[in-house]
Amino acid sequence: MENSSVALKNTTAYRVIYGDTDQMGIVYYANYLRWFEKGRAEFLRQIGLPYSTIEKQGFHFPVVEVSCRYLESARYDDLVQIESEMCECRRASLTFKYVIWRDSDRSTIATGMTKHACTDLTGRILRIPKILVDALEKAAV
Amino acid sequence: MENSSVALKNTTAYRVIYGDTDQMGIVYYANYLRWFEKGRAEFLRQIGLPYSTIEKQGFHFPVVEVSCRYLESARYDDLVQIESEMCECRRASLTFKYVIWRDSDRSTIATGMTKHACTDLTGRILRIPKILVDALEKAAV
Amino acid sequence: MENSSVALKNTTAYRVIYGDTDQMGIVYYANYLRWFEKGRAEFLRQIGLPYSTIEKQGFHFPVVEVSCRYLESARYDDLVQIESEMCECRRASLTFKYVIWRDSDRSTIATGMTKHACTDLTGRILRIPKILVDALEKAAV
Amino acid sequence: MENSSVALKNTTAYRVIYGDTDQMGIVYYANYLRWFEKGRAEFLRQIGLPYSTIEKQGFHFPVVEVSCRYLESARYDDLVQIESEMCECRRASLTFKYVIWRDSDRSTIATGMTKHACTDLTGRILRIPKILVDALEKAAV
Repeated sequence: MENSSVALKNTTAYRVIYGDTDQMGIVYYANYLRWFEKGRAEFLRQIGLPYSTIEKQGFHFPVVEVSCRYLESARYDDLVQIESEMCECRRASLTFKYVIWRDSDRSTIATGMTKHACTDLTGRILRIPKILVDALEKAAV
Repeated sequence: MENSSVALKNTTAYRVIYGDTDQMGIVYYANYLRWFEKGRAEFLRQIGLPYSTIEKQGFHFPVVEVSCRYLESARYDDLVQIESEMCECRRASLTFKYVIWRDSDRSTIATGMTKHACTDLTGRILRIPKILVDALEKAAV
Repeated sequence: MENSSVALKNTTAYRVIYGDTDQMGIVYYANYLRWFEKGRAEFLRQIGLPYSTIEKQGFHFPVVEVSCRYLESARYDDLVQIESEMCECRRASLTFKYVIWRDSDRSTIATGMTKHACTDLTGRILRIPKILVDALEKAAV
Repeated sequence: MENSSVALKNTTAYRVIYGDTDQMGIVYYANYLRWFEKGRAEFLRQIGLPYSTIEKQGFHFPVVEVSCRYLESARYDDLVQIESEMCECRRASLTFKYVIWRDSDRSTIATGMTKHACTDLTGRILRIPKILVDALEKAAV
């Protein structure tokens, strides 16, 4: 967070299923973005503000940008750890970064980021809601 | 169709991508249900009533039952043909059946069915809309 | 199991992500088949024989048939429980059945089954491996 | 291409299905990566070298990096056009860039890129195969 010296992080686990793999025998590259989503959802739950609550308040955080670097391959039945951190919280946008690592040998599999706009339910740009700013501050203490 | 001697059918093609396969080197079994959806959407478009139009009129056709038999394997880069037919149209439900075949050798890969309720946008059961009955009758002539 | 009076069951949890939902606001019907896969994988792990071990021994259990009934809708952020049971183990085929229920109110969301062939890695039909029969018997005691 | 003044491009169409959308009513962000894959597959087919042929020769092009910017939302039943271009072909890596646009109003929905390593089937880095270089040169004429 910009205004905080404490890095807030969430780590959540996921077990790779067959449906995540492709015929190269590794996890299909698009599925890492599902893990990013799971990671940021658990981050928000950890600070006391699940995304479902944010939506009920009338806000959406649609992804406006994503990037991912694939360093090693996740494979069937791997337990992967998804580490998520909110690294920027601006007036009308948020940025998360992610590290995916394999639980068994702690090797980093992928790193990535997502940038989100803040909108109302019709897609109009809004300021980041105060409930999120408050939750982040409270969690950072 | 119950009241029609003419079988209405739609056939639409799909090219298998890497993301559809799993590490067994074949299309993951859940992805056939995406093909069924594509098939019935094209069936409805063919009779002049795209599903998006049905939704705009306030109707949903959520799936209440699905089954699929996998006879052969679809593989990467296969061109598959999805054959869809509405085989039953009752007061408040619809049933489609499907045959998936490989274009190159015309072998049948899978067969399946989906049964749908007819509901309003909140999930309450409704009668099948007259616009659908009319479109089916018109198409059957 | 045919030869066992004790029903072996595994129950495993899954948290619904945005990527599982569709624009009807509910989980897309094909994604339940991913849950079935997760369920049977955890069943096999519980009896001491993870599917990855089965594969290393040269066996595959490709799905030859699936069915699913959708009773209620799973929604974003729901914690669903996947209950899996092997209900039949024949000479060259296996059948699992599944119950999906919502954790918060214990309502049953869906029920289903998958039937699997037993093949070698090239797709030739084989007898169910002895390691599986042994693991099932040991677990049933 | 580095050594070519002619930009090679492929454009291929995709119709959005329900399974691509999420409860925000738009296409889930990970699914754009499936479109990128479809785009580059059709690009390779157009220059006479389908990816399945490349694999049969013992080469893989695993994705090592992806990025995507989401400018507008693709929606259910939209026909999207996927424009793919190979923008770099180095000794042991390839880069594609993509533009996704809506067919109905020609508005740009997303832009992105993927960078690929060239490996053998076990993951060892290799030089880009001569068959690809030749096919690109022949197509550029």
